[in-house]
Amino acid sequence: MDNYEGWKGFVPGHWQNEINVRDFIQKNYTPYEGDDAFLVGVSTNTQKLWQEVLNYKKEESARGGVYDADTKVISTITSHGPGYIDKEIEKVVGLQTDKPFKRSLQPFGGIRMSESALKAYGYTIDPEVETVFSLYRKTHNQGVFDAYNEEIRAARRSGIITGLPDAYGRGRIIGDYRRVALYGIDRLIEAKEADKNLIVSPFTPEKIRDREEITDQINALKAIKTMAQTYGVDISLPAKTGQEATQFTYFAYLAAIKEQNGAAMSLGRVSTFLDIYFARDLQNGKVTEVEVQEIIDQFIMKLRMVQFMRTPEYNDLFSGDPTWVTESIGGMGVDGRTLVTKTSYRFLQTLINLGPAPEPNLTVLWSTNLPKNFKRFCARISIETSSIQYESDDLMRPEMGDDYGIACCVSAMRIGKDMQFFGARANLAKALLYAINGGKDEKTGAQVAPLYAPVIGEVLDFDEVMLKYDQMLEWLARVYCDALNIIHYMHDKYSYEAAQMALHDREVRRFFATGVAGLSVVADSLSAIKYARVFPIRNSDNITTDFRIEGDFPKYGNNDDRVDLIAQDLVHRFMDKIRKQFHYRNSVPSMSILTITSNVVYGKKTGATPDGRAAGQPFAPGANPMHGRDSNGALAALQSVAKLPYDDARDGISNTFSIIPGALGKLDKEEK
Amino acid sequence: MDNYEGWKGFVPGHWQNEINVRDFIQKNYTPYEGDDAFLVGVSTNTQKLWQEVLNYKKEESARGGVYDADTKVISTITSHGPGYIDKEIEKVVGLQTDKPFKRSLQPFGGIRMSESALKAYGYTIDPEVETVFSLYRKTHNQGVFDAYNEEIRAARRSGIITGLPDAYGRGRIIGDYRRVALYGIDRLIEAKEADKNLIVSPFTPEKIRDREEITDQINALKAIKTMAQTYGVDISLPAKTGQEATQFTYFAYLAAIKEQNGAAMSLGRVSTFLDIYFARDLQNGKVTEVEVQEIIDQFIMKLRMVQFMRTPEYNDLFSGDPTWVTESIGGMGVDGRTLVTKTSYRFLQTLINLGPAPEPNLTVLWSTNLPKNFKRFCARISIETSSIQYESDDLMRPEMGDDYGIACCVSAMRIGKDMQFFGARANLAKALLYAINGGKDEKTGAQVAPLYAPVIGEVLDFDEVMLKYDQMLEWLARVYCDALNIIHYMHDKYSYEAAQMALHDREVRRFFATGVAGLSVVADSLSAIKYARVFPIRNSDNITTDFRIEGDFPKYGNNDDRVDLIAQDLVHRFMDKIRKQFHYRNSVPSMSILTITSNVVYGKKTGATPDGRAAGQPFAPGANPMHGRDSNGALAALQSVAKLPYDDARDGISNTFSIIPGALGKLDKEEK
Repeated sequence: MDNYEGWKGFVPGHWQNEINVRDFIQKNYTPYEGDDAFLVGVSTNTQKLWQEVLNYKKEESARGGVYDADTKVISTITSHGPGYIDKEIEKVVGLQTDKPFKRSLQPFGGIRMSESALKAYGYTIDPEVETVFSLYRKTHNQGVFDAYNEEIRAARRSGIITGLPDAYGRGRIIGDYRRVALYGIDRLIEAKEADKNLIVSPFTPEKIRDREEITDQINALKAIKTMAQTYGVDISLPAKTGQEATQFTYFAYLAAIKEQNGAAMSLGRVSTFLDIYFARDLQNGKVTEVEVQEIIDQFIMKLRMVQFMRTPEYNDLFSGDPTWVTESIGGMGVDGRTLVTKTSYRFLQTLINLGPAPEPNLTVLWSTNLPKNFKRFCARISIETSSIQYESDDLMRPEMGDDYGIACCVSAMRIGKDMQFFGARANLAKALLYAINGGKDEKTGAQVAPLYAPVIGEVLDFDEVMLKYDQMLEWLARVYCDALNIIHYMHDKYSYEAAQMALHDREVRRFFATGVAGLSVVADSLSAIKYARVFPIRNSDNITTDFRIEGDFPKYGNNDDRVDLIAQDLVHRFMDKIRKQFHYRNSVPSMSILTITSNVVYGKKTGATPDGRAAGQPFAPGANPMHGRDSNGALAALQSVAKLPYDDARDGISNTFSIIPGALGKLDKEEK
Repeated sequence: MDNYEGWKGFVPGHWQNEINVRDFIQKNYTPYEGDDAFLVGVSTNTQKLWQEVLNYKKEESARGGVYDADTKVISTITSHGPGYIDKEIEKVVGLQTDKPFKRSLQPFGGIRMSESALKAYGYTIDPEVETVFSLYRKTHNQGVFDAYNEEIRAARRSGIITGLPDAYGRGRIIGDYRRVALYGIDRLIEAKEADKNLIVSPFTPEKIRDREEITDQINALKAIKTMAQTYGVDISLPAKTGQEATQFTYFAYLAAIKEQNGAAMSLGRVSTFLDIYFARDLQNGKVTEVEVQEIIDQFIMKLRMVQFMRTPEYNDLFSGDPTWVTESIGGMGVDGRTLVTKTSYRFLQTLINLGPAPEPNLTVLWSTNLPKNFKRFCARISIETSSIQYESDDLMRPEMGDDYGIACCVSAMRIGKDMQFFGARANLAKALLYAINGGKDEKTGAQVAPLYAPVIGEVLDFDEVMLKYDQMLEWLARVYCDALNIIHYMHDKYSYEAAQMALHDREVRRFFATGVAGLSVVADSLSAIKYARVFPIRNSDNITTDFRIEGDFPKYGNNDDRVDLIAQDLVHRFMDKIRKQFHYRNSVPSMSILTITSNVVYGKKTGATPDGRAAGQPFAPGANPMHGRDSNGALAALQSVAKLPYDDARDGISNTFSIIPGALGKLDKEEK
């Protein structure tokens, strides 16, 4: 057992003999049930820094959305020299490139993406870089398209499967960035070397791949150390203070975003971990509350600056340029103690000190058992900033334990133990139209799915439609998984997340994360077919392009089992079809009912549906009822959503819900 | 069924509906049993060209072994513009780079190898190339070392396994270069597209890999076409003349050597194939014999110019800088007709017209049934040029059919149907010393193999030695196969032979080709232990470093079963241990007893052996008896070798055999 200087004063435990951050937290953290009175405002230096950041942002807007961009230097963990906003006053250092707001060049996912992203903002990629990544170094994107078949291409083109991470990084991997702070790089390398020695003969391709991956991970760890050195920070050994713990954790995260432009580069669950260090420092009189808050404000400031070079098409799909730097805060421990600490408050306080912001995505893991004071504080910050996301800890904890975090917006993952093969979404509404049209696309007339029997007759018959829909979903699940198997094989091959996986355990649980779009559209459509009379309107090619509805029908979102059970069945039915498929690397199939914004794009690609939705109209986001159809009030709508089986949608169910502050009760300020 | 202009006059068959060169040959070739009277000498233009080549060679020597070398342009099929010796008079065009004797830069196998090869000859690699292949594009060599374990590294360092293709290209793959001539590129691409469509869901990693490989193959075919175009030659459609057939075949081969610096880049079996075209041209009065010979002389001249940039260490291992451009000539068909044609003669005639040369390695597939005239001709050319290699067609034909070729020097492969995972050699003699020393290296004292019980006592006991040797061979076979599994996984991943595999069938039989060195040393050592008294001489660390022998013992190479059966058992025993291992890609394990020159290096790495061989002394090459110990004459020596089981050494058994011309009987010239 080592006894590092950085560990002085900590309660000992298994965490000293193995890489086990949770054990360290459990033995050392101090739950906080008090109120927010201890919090302090923003420091002058932080304010000054933040003003500089805002100036950059302004200038970025003035320059059309990009302030500066690399066109030649390829981003790796060590590609850039140190970068600062204002070196003298920064408490937490490190930028993605050598200058603030200069976007990095990350072509491993796809050279054409890099090229067109730069082009869109008036930059030209260095021709040598293009040559290298066209001729000598295959990219993830190229690999995927080299293996795709025509069936996948057609399904992708038509939009029945949309947003596949075949032209952008899959993201959704959270490294346990805290490990660098708790153990230092050298100890982590030792552990990885030991892991590698456990992979022995016979060397099957899987084992060879695993050995090579660990080597890549070790090299990434070495690179993180080198990168930190350029900032004058030695991260070989455990962090000794709260400032160092924050800095080390940030360097580890920084390595991840230097290496990967993933669709969601979440941070994990670091606040309670860091609290242990700050509590020790405060107890030892090494820092003041003002200094602690300054470090956290500046850490959050760095996270707000995370950005990638992306194409306008990417931004369209994701309605903006999200980075999903999600930090999961609070929640309850499996032993019944709350995981809320003073630093949970300090993290949320940044929304006051720096002002509201969508990133980092501060997510409160909500439990009915959270301390009352904390609940009250969250409510107040929500009211004041509209910047907190909430997730049900009570729902996830039984599955995930108490050291999981949210990747992106809803995907729960045990930190350092799980990762996800992100899969975007299958369009269930379009699949219904394919079932009706015998596999032909309702917009182009192309035969995308197999030439199955179309639905005939003047009125849609529920049983006939269900039979044909079921068959079409079977096809869709297969093609969808075909694409995902190829994508994730190639991502591992050409764009492996070495830095992030270096901060994972040896045996990682991988989720094969599928997703669906258009749930409420299909539920309502099937309800209409069942309870009203729906007449297909066919064009000259005998393709149904619209519907006429006679009579009324129950709509999802009103706590009406007649249609809610259709939605429930649909989720279970499609998940079972996903379960039947082959899953790369023995990954565990999962599904999300999740779109926050991309529902608009999905709707655009889908013709008119039997529920009366017009062609091109947006879907409802995630598991939401279709806008305006939930006529029984918010609670009934939530109850409909709550009926969806979490077992069949383990990757998360989203319900986008806007309320006016008054609906939460009287204003906190008045109550005080 | 297509009917190309190039196919006019050919006997139709299956070959028109499928890629099947053998069927084309069988239906169209004309066996030739006549003598060599039709042959012509060298043309003035060929002589002129050859003189230019000789001048380059001379200048190359003057420049220290390398005439010129690329340091920046990375060799791909299309990396260079056209290159000529003397454009106006060349009948067959195409060089590896844009200038004669300018060596290409091939870093995919390993950047350090490229670097040090260039450095050895006074060249400096372009720093950007180094950056690309260090930071962005992993090489085969790097991949291998990222996955190796310490056990393999130690075995490699000590030399118990030597010459592994982990720092150079494995080679030993023969593309069916004739396909480009017979079908043209477009038809071959069509066939590959069809092959790709046969790989369907579920997309396991193996299937994804296969689909990606076929895409790479198709891209290679397209690149060959583009490369030919730079020489003004359109190879989209089948060749129409003998000159075109030769040119197309050569372009296909040229693509292979532009893409790969393999340890053996053999040509296959093209002479009888080309004969069909020349026979048609001659019959149609399109060419004269002089013109035909000129084309073949110039084709062979191009093959003589094949060269790679290699390190002095590589040249040491292989005692020179061999390219193993092996062309297999003659042999018998399975239907009993000889495959000797006039063009078989013409190929051998190049040894007269251009003079003797080791490359291309013209190899006669020898059968007792070969036409008498051809045998006589071969004997004469052998006597005059010492440049023909002979292999037993009668031994290989039952296994390989009648369209196989020799890769390198002895590895038989069905053209376009087999490939080999080359494996260099395990040192059986050193393994015997390891058995005696309980896994310690006799030269360094390092514990390389497991800490097995060493042989004790003052006199070596045969049964004890065999027991311990068997155990050591078990270990050796495992570590050896571990290394090979890693090497070939990484070769496929980082240095895939797309051009060569594009000229293979969809379902390729892969050989997992192991090899052994020191067979006769071990046979004699075990014989000495059994029949004489062998006293180990141990050093102060109790490691046996020498032996004292009392009495005489039978020696391998004298047709004496007492020792020959030991050799036979050894081959079978080790092959069975190889069979027990995991073999990458379901490859078929095979073994060779083959060293032509590297036996010197193996001997250098091995201490004194119980047969009386001093430390560092060369082994006998391949399956040869130790030099000077075969006292019963050549026939007895050959009979000892002939007892080795071909079933256990399917990759070939070599016996290097020098005789004075007189031993073949009276000189052919006098007989005439």
